[in-house]
Amino acid sequence: MLGDCIENVRKRVPLVHNITNYVTVNDVANVILACGGSPIMSDEPEDVEDITSICGGLNINIGTLNKRSIEGMYLAGAKANELGHVTLLDPVGAGASALRTNTAIGLMEKIQFTVIRGNISEIKTLASGSGTTKGVDADVADAVTDESLSNAVGFAKALAAKTRSIIAITGAIDLVADAKRCFVIRNGRPEMGKITGTGCQLSGMMAAFVTANPDATLEAAAAAVCTMGLAGEIGWSRMQEGDGNSTYRNRIIDAIYHMDGKTLDAGAKYEVK
Amino acid sequence: MLGDCIENVRKRVPLVHNITNYVTVNDVANVILACGGSPIMSDEPEDVEDITSICGGLNINIGTLNKRSIEGMYLAGAKANELGHVTLLDPVGAGASALRTNTAIGLMEKIQFTVIRGNISEIKTLASGSGTTKGVDADVADAVTDESLSNAVGFAKALAAKTRSIIAITGAIDLVADAKRCFVIRNGRPEMGKITGTGCQLSGMMAAFVTANPDATLEAAAAAVCTMGLAGEIGWSRMQEGDGNSTYRNRIIDAIYHMDGKTLDAGAKYEVK
Amino acid sequence: MLGDCIENVRKRVPLVHNITNYVTVNDVANVILACGGSPIMSDEPEDVEDITSICGGLNINIGTLNKRSIEGMYLAGAKANELGHVTLLDPVGAGASALRTNTAIGLMEKIQFTVIRGNISEIKTLASGSGTTKGVDADVADAVTDESLSNAVGFAKALAAKTRSIIAITGAIDLVADAKRCFVIRNGRPEMGKITGTGCQLSGMMAAFVTANPDATLEAAAAAVCTMGLAGEIGWSRMQEGDGNSTYRNRIIDAIYHMDGKTLDAGAKYEVK
Repeated sequence: MLGDCIENVRKRVPLVHNITNYVTVNDVANVILACGGSPIMSDEPEDVEDITSICGGLNINIGTLNKRSIEGMYLAGAKANELGHVTLLDPVGAGASALRTNTAIGLMEKIQFTVIRGNISEIKTLASGSGTTKGVDADVADAVTDESLSNAVGFAKALAAKTRSIIAITGAIDLVADAKRCFVIRNGRPEMGKITGTGCQLSGMMAAFVTANPDATLEAAAAAVCTMGLAGEIGWSRMQEGDGNSTYRNRIIDAIYHMDGKTLDAGAKYEVK
Repeated sequence: MLGDCIENVRKRVPLVHNITNYVTVNDVANVILACGGSPIMSDEPEDVEDITSICGGLNINIGTLNKRSIEGMYLAGAKANELGHVTLLDPVGAGASALRTNTAIGLMEKIQFTVIRGNISEIKTLASGSGTTKGVDADVADAVTDESLSNAVGFAKALAAKTRSIIAITGAIDLVADAKRCFVIRNGRPEMGKITGTGCQLSGMMAAFVTANPDATLEAAAAAVCTMGLAGEIGWSRMQEGDGNSTYRNRIIDAIYHMDGKTLDAGAKYEVK
Repeated sequence: MLGDCIENVRKRVPLVHNITNYVTVNDVANVILACGGSPIMSDEPEDVEDITSICGGLNINIGTLNKRSIEGMYLAGAKANELGHVTLLDPVGAGASALRTNTAIGLMEKIQFTVIRGNISEIKTLASGSGTTKGVDADVADAVTDESLSNAVGFAKALAAKTRSIIAITGAIDLVADAKRCFVIRNGRPEMGKITGTGCQLSGMMAAFVTANPDATLEAAAAAVCTMGLAGEIGWSRMQEGDGNSTYRNRIIDAIYHMDGKTLDAGAKYEVK
């Protein structure tokens, strides 16, 4: 089932426009290539509408945002909405600065996102809203654990209903929800947190998955999460003595490069709530 | 013969100023170091003239261009021309957006490039011109194959004559032409397309090669293409089970690091037409 | 002794705000993670004060500076000073362009840096000053060698006294000095110069070390230099036939990932003058 989603990426080679931070952009590009998609990066306001028009999906990541690139995000998002393209928001650092919080919330007000993906802290910030925006109840714990799971699933579904977006909250336990169903995913390893940008990489890959699976967007988003987590497990199994986070980064991308539907179906650990 | 070109890079350590995209810039820097050159990156208009003045070559790559960096490209190019430096244009995405097409063509109008390197689609866009620019006949196929080779070689030579630049068209078969001669190169592997930025890396390395070989610029550009392709072959031969595009990227750069004239002469696969 | 410094990084997980160049930023982030810190990148003037406020240290690196990011450097630096945070300046390319020289010197005039780290050429440029700035005597040789060592140590201490900053001059022999003491460090390998950004990586890591060791800032800066050099030695020992600068980059970061106080104390090669 989820395995079909990655097979569709490899078959359809979705072109994904990324407006993303300069810290992890190279890894984002290589991960999109590894899973079977094709990445283009562009953030200049005069360039983004043309670029997004030739793509099927748009990945907006607000890490290292600036005034110029924020303008590019609004323009690209509007164009993508107009064309019915897949749109994904990764609100990196929402809650950490006023500019990031306001940009993420402003983008959500102007653009209908297919998916919003972040950690629990970022997503809670978006849910609480700011200024005139009134958010849903964000009174969930700061980490999704077995104890807080039921509450967190409810929160994710409520936010999905309110935003009409798929909500992906990643952490030790990952949640991928629409208004009715929530995938609870337990792939991955804690050592992935010692590599910069595994979240950014996941967002880029998720945009490719959802773009290639227009009839199963929730499953596609969940499949991307399982693919990243499973690649983290496979990559870790190939680590040798002395290898650290830099080699681990390579091994994870390598594992995505080799991922197929059968491997994904066999390794994906999830339940639907 | 081509082997001398890389030996000259290692001997002369050309300093190359790169105005390039933030996606692949780290790999461009490491590839220039691997082949024996020395990279500097700068795109701020107030900074570029000073930086280009202390270098021997200038590599302009329009991926992730913006208004500010475009201004930097024009200023750096003019200064490099004034100083008689090697200049290379990599028109990333020309044809994909108006800004990219117009920037590439605008740069070609104001700056005399020693080399222009792109894929067939980008180079055809430049040849067709836009606005008031009247281009040469770009009625060539969308891929250089054995069937279309003779036509493509003619196209490359004609564009080289018109632009007074070396024209490098890279793909499954690579062409490197001036008005009279065309190197037809068959090194490389298709898997290189699954790594982001092998084209950008080649452009940076080519700028270093041409800078270090002022009396044999066509051979130097061809030698850079052969070096990248041969490194792709050597890197692939070192791949182990489970390795993917991320490890392949490292292995290619590693192979460039070890490339010497003898290895290059033994492995270069080309004919001159 | 120095070993305690890295153990404190791992224990305290200092959050470091980096305004740094887009060439080496990914490696900087992974190195800060590898040593036990946590990196955030932000250069937009409207964003930097909020981001620096939630961090403990600020790393300013002027490679690929632009007008916007320079404004961000001044604002972040002022805020960090106001909050009593650790501040580090890496004056990449000072001396190579007027903008870089003037920016580095301007930042030093407005911001009290805890540490300034560069190569001998960059540090000499800062010491000489420019415009109305009157510098200390920068009549030292262009490389720190056994012959020039005594002179260079005196220069470093004098500049440290004048700037009230720790001065770190890195090269074949590294110096880390305050007004009274100078660590003379002999770790590392010449091949590290074939990897882009080992200096930038060191600056990011040094900011993490100094932030985590507020009561031993000179020792912490020296410990960061020893960690980087020793990781270069350990990484090199793991190189296999055919490995080059790209794999070496990974192995160095991997070695930092595994560095502990005991390994550092056993491998650090330094004397205090």
